[in-house]
Amino acid sequence: MKNKTLEEFSLETASSEPVPGGGSIAAYSGALSAALSEMVANLTVGKKKYEDVEEEMKLILDKSEMIRVKMLDNIEKDCEAFDKVMAGFKLPKNTEEEKTHRTKMIQESLVAAAEIPLEIAKEAFEIMPLAEIVIEKGNKNAVTDGLVSAMLARTAVLSALLNVKINLNSIKDEDYVEKTRKIVENLEKMAVEKEKEILNKSPLK
Amino acid sequence: MKNKTLEEFSLETASSEPVPGGGSIAAYSGALSAALSEMVANLTVGKKKYEDVEEEMKLILDKSEMIRVKMLDNIEKDCEAFDKVMAGFKLPKNTEEEKTHRTKMIQESLVAAAEIPLEIAKEAFEIMPLAEIVIEKGNKNAVTDGLVSAMLARTAVLSALLNVKINLNSIKDEDYVEKTRKIVENLEKMAVEKEKEILNKSPLK
Repeated sequence: MKNKTLEEFSLETASSEPVPGGGSIAAYSGALSAALSEMVANLTVGKKKYEDVEEEMKLILDKSEMIRVKMLDNIEKDCEAFDKVMAGFKLPKNTEEEKTHRTKMIQESLVAAAEIPLEIAKEAFEIMPLAEIVIEKGNKNAVTDGLVSAMLARTAVLSALLNVKINLNSIKDEDYVEKTRKIVENLEKMAVEKEKEILNKSPLK
Repeated sequence: MKNKTLEEFSLETASSEPVPGGGSIAAYSGALSAALSEMVANLTVGKKKYEDVEEEMKLILDKSEMIRVKMLDNIEKDCEAFDKVMAGFKLPKNTEEEKTHRTKMIQESLVAAAEIPLEIAKEAFEIMPLAEIVIEKGNKNAVTDGLVSAMLARTAVLSALLNVKINLNSIKDEDYVEKTRKIVENLEKMAVEKEKEILNKSPLK
């Protein structure tokens, strides 16, 4: 999926094929968010004016690259998880045995289809403190790129969490649903607050 | 630029090359936002259950496709505008004549570099009412895709406007700056409010 062109990916999203959908878009938003914080760090390291933050920026380079690479793979993983749910619904349901098996397969695939966007949301949230640091301490000429990184991270988190929630609605394991709902609510709240906090630091009023 | 793969585009964003930067990312976020509303409309047309909104959905298909295609081209346009500003700064400034010419070229390129993200912001804002309609009237199974569309549109608008503002800081034509600042402030406010309004309609609490 990461080898599609920008145009192809947008065209396939727009089509009536169910994938790629919101989960994959959340993952790619996360990849671009990470890329923008990485860019600001790249524009900061090796510059005399910023030598005090050289080591901190190098750490950000490592972290943001790691997240970017993971997010690119998550685009595909989200599509695969969705396909598995679809495949589950297509299983035969003629006998009691088939019905039991079908339900089990659907339920398992739904949990997997919730876990992947949850992972995307958690990783996208990890970008926010990186964006915050590059905005505060990185190359001033690239401050807008850091701010866009923060906004895209927030959208990646919230978008991924929507895809968790829609799957939770069909999952029967109440303990799992309750536990996951709490994580979702917390992450949602934290992402919205963190973005506000970061945007308040913008030198561009 | 739209023929780059997702991986290449993220890698080039992450690099210390100044383009693609936040403006291009805003444009591609807009393209994906439009694609998601288009997808929900595509999953709605031709379905018996939704025949009452068939014509409305077809209109949304047309509009969202038009915006998506424009946004894909805007990725490139934003890079070109930025390159022109850079080229202006590299002009010679030995004689008075050269200095005057250089200043003129830089100022002209800065206005162009503000106009393109302003156009991106305006177009991305146009997606929000489309997302609102597909969420309210489109295929219920794809409601999360409509919600992600709205969030990405908001991020595209605000990100593009940051890139307008950073250019306004260097533009000397006060009338232009004042007029444009007002447009920017209005659009910012409207995008934030409209997204809130749309997310409040989410059936996923």
